[in-house]
Amino acid sequence: MFALHPQLAADTFCLGNFPLSQALLMDDARYPWLILVPRRDGLREIFELNPEDQQQFLWESCHLAEVLCRHFQADKMNIAALGNMVPQLHIHHIVRYRSDAAWPKPVWGVQTAVSYQPDQRAALCRALIPQFQQFDSCIKF
Amino acid sequence: MFALHPQLAADTFCLGNFPLSQALLMDDARYPWLILVPRRDGLREIFELNPEDQQQFLWESCHLAEVLCRHFQADKMNIAALGNMVPQLHIHHIVRYRSDAAWPKPVWGVQTAVSYQPDQRAALCRALIPQFQQFDSCIKF
Repeated sequence: MFALHPQLAADTFCLGNFPLSQALLMDDARYPWLILVPRRDGLREIFELNPEDQQQFLWESCHLAEVLCRHFQADKMNIAALGNMVPQLHIHHIVRYRSDAAWPKPVWGVQTAVSYQPDQRAALCRALIPQFQQFDSCIKF
Repeated sequence: MFALHPQLAADTFCLGNFPLSQALLMDDARYPWLILVPRRDGLREIFELNPEDQQQFLWESCHLAEVLCRHFQADKMNIAALGNMVPQLHIHHIVRYRSDAAWPKPVWGVQTAVSYQPDQRAALCRALIPQFQQFDSCIKF
């Protein structure tokens, strides 16, 4: 039975579910930052997904990255499966700008996260979620 | 006509080619670190690959990650498409150990790369390359 790792639950807000992955918003207003978590128990690496899930993961990741890139007019997307601190398989999708707090470095460990204000987060969700295909939102508008 | 970005060429050794991607070894002996570069001009993001190339990329990345993970007995794989400094699409596949120089942080920007000794690099290639399927090696043994 799939359960989200407590560190991921603590650091994020759940936006909803694609057919395979839960979609989370990282609570760091410095960067538009979403995380996909395939709802499969005990996985740490992308290659551990079965072939059908790998296909679905590919679709979800590319779809999410493209929506984020276009909606936020990213200078660059950063896509990463690291998992050194939280081993549950999760894939970061981060919008980067040349003007952001960490550019050109990766975002991990740069200064301190800035939590969203509730209205800021709500506005982001209202604008973004309707663009997701195959998506079951857990946020009611 | 595909040409490898000069920064990637400067920082790596070419091991050979999968059907889609060139496989490069990062010249940093602190971590087993390979990079896949899809041989397609002008791409910056994974989602810009056409559907057939996305499939092939998925196969190559999962295959490479699994071979590296098993061969080096990784504690964790780090897989990332960043591209903030070198925008040509390239995907890092890095073997991580709890005992390595940067753990648990990501490797980018941690201290200075340590170049391979030639015999060290040759030994790594001899051990690793025969495990790659669908691979055209540019290294002669």
